Amino acid sequence: MVVREFGFAVQEFEERTTRLQKVMREKELDAVFLTTEPNIRYFTGYYTQFWESPTRPWFLVVPAEGKPVAVIPGIGESGMRGTWIDDIRTWSSPAPEDDGISLVAGVINALPSRFGKIGATLGLQSYLRMPTADYMTLCSKVTGKEFVDIAEDMHYLRSVKSPAEIAKIRKACEITNDAFDAIPSHARVGQTEREICKQMRINMLNGGAEFVKYLISGSGPDGYKSIIMGPTSREIEDGDVLIIDTGAVYDGYFSDFDRNFAFGNCSDETKRVYDCVYEATTAGFNAARPGATTTDVYNAMWSIMEAGGALGNGVGRLGHGLGIQLTEWPSNTATDNTPLEAGMVITLEPGMTYADGKEMVHEENIVITENGAEWLSRRASEHITIIT
Amino acid sequence: MVVREFGFAVQEFEERTTRLQKVMREKELDAVFLTTEPNIRYFTGYYTQFWESPTRPWFLVVPAEGKPVAVIPGIGESGMRGTWIDDIRTWSSPAPEDDGISLVAGVINALPSRFGKIGATLGLQSYLRMPTADYMTLCSKVTGKEFVDIAEDMHYLRSVKSPAEIAKIRKACEITNDAFDAIPSHARVGQTEREICKQMRINMLNGGAEFVKYLISGSGPDGYKSIIMGPTSREIEDGDVLIIDTGAVYDGYFSDFDRNFAFGNCSDETKRVYDCVYEATTAGFNAARPGATTTDVYNAMWSIMEAGGALGNGVGRLGHGLGIQLTEWPSNTATDNTPLEAGMVITLEPGMTYADGKEMVHEENIVITENGAEWLSRRASEHITIIT
Repeated sequence: MVVREFGFAVQEFEERTTRLQKVMREKELDAVFLTTEPNIRYFTGYYTQFWESPTRPWFLVVPAEGKPVAVIPGIGESGMRGTWIDDIRTWSSPAPEDDGISLVAGVINALPSRFGKIGATLGLQSYLRMPTADYMTLCSKVTGKEFVDIAEDMHYLRSVKSPAEIAKIRKACEITNDAFDAIPSHARVGQTEREICKQMRINMLNGGAEFVKYLISGSGPDGYKSIIMGPTSREIEDGDVLIIDTGAVYDGYFSDFDRNFAFGNCSDETKRVYDCVYEATTAGFNAARPGATTTDVYNAMWSIMEAGGALGNGVGRLGHGLGIQLTEWPSNTATDNTPLEAGMVITLEPGMTYADGKEMVHEENIVITENGAEWLSRRASEHITIIT
Repeated sequence: MVVREFGFAVQEFEERTTRLQKVMREKELDAVFLTTEPNIRYFTGYYTQFWESPTRPWFLVVPAEGKPVAVIPGIGESGMRGTWIDDIRTWSSPAPEDDGISLVAGVINALPSRFGKIGATLGLQSYLRMPTADYMTLCSKVTGKEFVDIAEDMHYLRSVKSPAEIAKIRKACEITNDAFDAIPSHARVGQTEREICKQMRINMLNGGAEFVKYLISGSGPDGYKSIIMGPTSREIEDGDVLIIDTGAVYDGYFSDFDRNFAFGNCSDETKRVYDCVYEATTAGFNAARPGATTTDVYNAMWSIMEAGGALGNGVGRLGHGLGIQLTEWPSNTATDNTPLEAGMVITLEPGMTYADGKEMVHEENIVITENGAEWLSRRASEHITIIT
């Protein structure tokens, strides 16, 4: 395999398209209609920060045979010309009266209608990045074909990563690990969460991260209660526990894991709970292999934490898929039951409430292999790190 | 006014809610249903990076009277408790069978049905951040009330900024200006676009930016052809022109402007076009005042560039609203015709194609005042900066 520092070989996109077209034959679809950044990037390689602008819609139509067709605002044409896509239709956007809808309807209508069905990400943990009213208009303009949900198939396709994708996630994890390892050298009592997190963000950029799209923190006396807010202007005090959870992006692929730090000292109870959640991570890793399910992984982790006195879990799951997005399908829950396959990248995220207003959450990133699993993140320390 | 470094006084959210409720009376709506980060943050102050995870839906219901009701995943409860919102309903998400839909339907059904209409952002440059299939289910579960489009009203409400909002955008602009001013001190021939942009990103973080959510570059011999891709691994050569366009975020509010740099030397033609586009910016500024429209601003800029030999404009508009999002409604186009009002923050973004594969784009940020407009960004240099 030719290792590319940025982007992918054309073969990668051909294979992804072939996999989708196989699903299309099984599901009897004439085409798949896509609207979001991750899905359009997945099949085209078109990679731009411009999605930060919510104004203009972008469309990709993947036919049953042949290459995808891009139907995009004119501002994106020169960028899309740099991808493997040949058929690029553009219009001058924003155009409130008809923002690409007639154009994309025309592309869909021109395709052969063998089954009369177009796949779209209408359901599970998906949305359409276009006005709902425009989607309704599109449904009426497309003749002889109806839109059907393909959300779960798209999640599944993207969940099994290629070696080139795994290499990028591994690199994002390395960058994140290095920045976590540096925390004890710069984080001090008296600094605010913002100051500590800013330094970590800069360290990740200097370490090769393209972006740091997620970097939160929680802190409090001997424990924290939220893992999705902050960083705040709260000053770290002696006896605090601080969690930082972050996702670095390397060439469009995320890491996503956290680390816990105590400052000065730490109660025996919090130390014990840290060790318990660490043990849960081990159990999750040992349960993760092809043929096992996300629920097996969940049960392995939850049984350890339950035995360790868990009062509950406020996160709603104990890990999830990881890749182009910070969190992807599937979820490690009591009812998810998704079979794991080699190539799937997931997080193990055991967490427990152990006192009123106190959570302990660990997280690691792993890839499922032929025989089991492999760590992508270097594991957290076996016992809580105390910064003195 | 009490100046707050982070967040807003509760009065700000009360006023925003009052403004929306006034629209609701005019449009005969019983409630407004919101799903996206900017809209939910606008009315609650709930501010978290966790939206980077696309898995879980979040809902806000603004009734005709009283405070908004948050219907959110349990993971968000402790954070939402830190806002002015009192009524917070949660469920354990992800829950594929019913991810909050019954819960939010119950909240809507319990509201008085005076008009039988619920506003939702269904149309213009908006989307629903929830599965389309779940929205259909919600429509069927809500009894005696139908959803109607309120997208343009929401855009308008958010387009008129309060003094506290303008202060945050002004700060984001200062941070961005300082980092642009530093470019000649660190950018050199032989560096890649990535290297130059990484340093600028770090400078913005050190300058007080919370995030740098957008930072693109384009470069080429005496000109560039794209303004939404990159930064790439292309090495800057003598005679290149480099554009960097960036949005810093300060406490949740964006700046959005660009700067052009020549390296070593620059053709007379490119210098002339730079000056022409600079002059267009001046004309746009002079046209921007209450009562004038976005189309007046467009015409003022475009007429200068047309006279200067513009072959076209690949961007699709010459500026746009700015605030919680990198680009907001309205757009400066030939047909937009949105009347400007004091408090609106917009970008002036004149750009022209002046040769095959060569664009010249300038951008500045301004706020409409009672009598005209005020610069939020410090203007670009009058002539192109040449880095030697």
